[in-house]
Amino acid sequence: MTSDPSAPVCVLGTGLIGGSLLRAAVAAGYTGFGYNRSAPGAAAARADGFDVSGDLPGVLRRAASTDALLVLGVPMPAIDHLLAEIATFAPGCALTDVVSVKGPVLDAVREHGLDRRYVGGHPMAGTARSGWDATDADLFRDAVWAIGVDEGTHAETWLRVARLALDCGSVLVPVRAEEHDGAVARISHLPHVFAEALAAAGTAGGPLALGLAAGSFRDGTRVAGSAPDLVRAICEPNAAALLRVLDESLAALTAARDSLRADGTLGPLVDAGYSGRVDFEDRQRPEITGIAPGEHDWLDRYAEAGRAGGVITTLP
Amino acid sequence: MTSDPSAPVCVLGTGLIGGSLLRAAVAAGYTGFGYNRSAPGAAAARADGFDVSGDLPGVLRRAASTDALLVLGVPMPAIDHLLAEIATFAPGCALTDVVSVKGPVLDAVREHGLDRRYVGGHPMAGTARSGWDATDADLFRDAVWAIGVDEGTHAETWLRVARLALDCGSVLVPVRAEEHDGAVARISHLPHVFAEALAAAGTAGGPLALGLAAGSFRDGTRVAGSAPDLVRAICEPNAAALLRVLDESLAALTAARDSLRADGTLGPLVDAGYSGRVDFEDRQRPEITGIAPGEHDWLDRYAEAGRAGGVITTLP
Repeated sequence: MTSDPSAPVCVLGTGLIGGSLLRAAVAAGYTGFGYNRSAPGAAAARADGFDVSGDLPGVLRRAASTDALLVLGVPMPAIDHLLAEIATFAPGCALTDVVSVKGPVLDAVREHGLDRRYVGGHPMAGTARSGWDATDADLFRDAVWAIGVDEGTHAETWLRVARLALDCGSVLVPVRAEEHDGAVARISHLPHVFAEALAAAGTAGGPLALGLAAGSFRDGTRVAGSAPDLVRAICEPNAAALLRVLDESLAALTAARDSLRADGTLGPLVDAGYSGRVDFEDRQRPEITGIAPGEHDWLDRYAEAGRAGGVITTLP
Repeated sequence: MTSDPSAPVCVLGTGLIGGSLLRAAVAAGYTGFGYNRSAPGAAAARADGFDVSGDLPGVLRRAASTDALLVLGVPMPAIDHLLAEIATFAPGCALTDVVSVKGPVLDAVREHGLDRRYVGGHPMAGTARSGWDATDADLFRDAVWAIGVDEGTHAETWLRVARLALDCGSVLVPVRAEEHDGAVARISHLPHVFAEALAAAGTAGGPLALGLAAGSFRDGTRVAGSAPDLVRAICEPNAAALLRVLDESLAALTAARDSLRADGTLGPLVDAGYSGRVDFEDRQRPEITGIAPGEHDWLDRYAEAGRAGGVITTLP
């Protein structure tokens, strides 16, 4: 094994996120190749000049022989199958992923005995479109990319994953898997659930309601335009954390409903929401510096800094 | 009284919507003047060359003497006071409004005996900003403008209001007050309520959650950045209709929560939401033609056409 930062990147699953990562990595100077299960998807990537094959064992053997960094670019439901193949054909490769949930991926990686060189990742970027045709080398530019700092993380692999994410134009938020899942339940999965409920409520009003719909409805339902299978693959694996925040929000909405009914006021909800939006708009992203991967307590220190809203913009 | 379409427009309340309407009307060639309760707001409008005063009786006397079309540009809580002054100083003027709810305005107009020349209006446009500084002559361009077709509507006044809205660059959706309020509860007021709940849930996750927040959270909470008083003034007067759709959505979200908990699936909610968003994106806006204001059944025919998603883009 080598720590050569220019070693290849092998993307497994070249849909919107994986495919965009392959584009971004190649644009940043990496040797990149990949695998895609669907033949038309692989062909579309090849037509654009990218080295993408439908032969998973062959791609993994090549990754093993070149010490490529493997990137799991598939949704959660396809992870287990991919890990089984990796355990067979490329068990020594460094490994990261771009899945929207981190605890279940970490569990699966451990089950397959692949955790020694695994570092979780989650670029907070996307569009309602999907597939190779939606890929964009600039998808991750100025985005936030969550990077795992779970116990036992291999510093050299971590640096390699961190470098790739930075080279894609993102800033990094170091985070433990469980905390990641709790946070994204609030700021990604709950927004998806609410968008679906809003879109359903809107169309139940018929052509008149949809005809009057403007900015608040358009923005509030945007992510409901994502493919249903993809939304489910994003949200359902995070059921435990999503259920907690969904219960919390149902309680808040029920209280608002009761307050509107009894007293004609939405005051407490509106005040809390306004305050939350202001917090979001005013959030700071202090740069995390002075931590050297591999040094004593580096994982704890990164987790603490990420918890405080900090981001990594350069590596030591 | 005259039906001169170039008769002045008098805007009462020159905040975001009223002020933008004054700008748009003047840009379209109308003589426009107005009133604003706050002296700094009136001064800001004057500094930009608009004829806005803080003297309500004076402004209303001028409106009466020039047969101006009065536009109620204030939020619902300030409507009653304004109508009382209009009943005193300009009871014969044609009257419209830009309030986000129509039933309560119509009731108040009737209480003050001003309904003979009243036609409700609601431009479906806005931003999270407010006040004269946020005004924009193009705010209504390509927007949808709901226009009342309630029983007893005066055809000549209706034409005058319709012409103003078209001259501001909007298309018109003819709608009865009660149906308007039911529809906007779904596509405007519920989105506001959901945005507030989402923003509150996000900030409850602390700096980590806000640091990871990206597009779905940003879009889903955008309207929570509106001033709390304004959001309440928009939503609370529509409590009856909002409570109905809020109950409906609470039931849908609770069912989704139960399904996720029991079976790990969000399938029914996601399918319904996706379908709703597709309905929204694919909605048609058939042009309403062949109805002459004042002819037999014109109000019923317009209401029916608006219910079917139709819009008025030109006048006979």
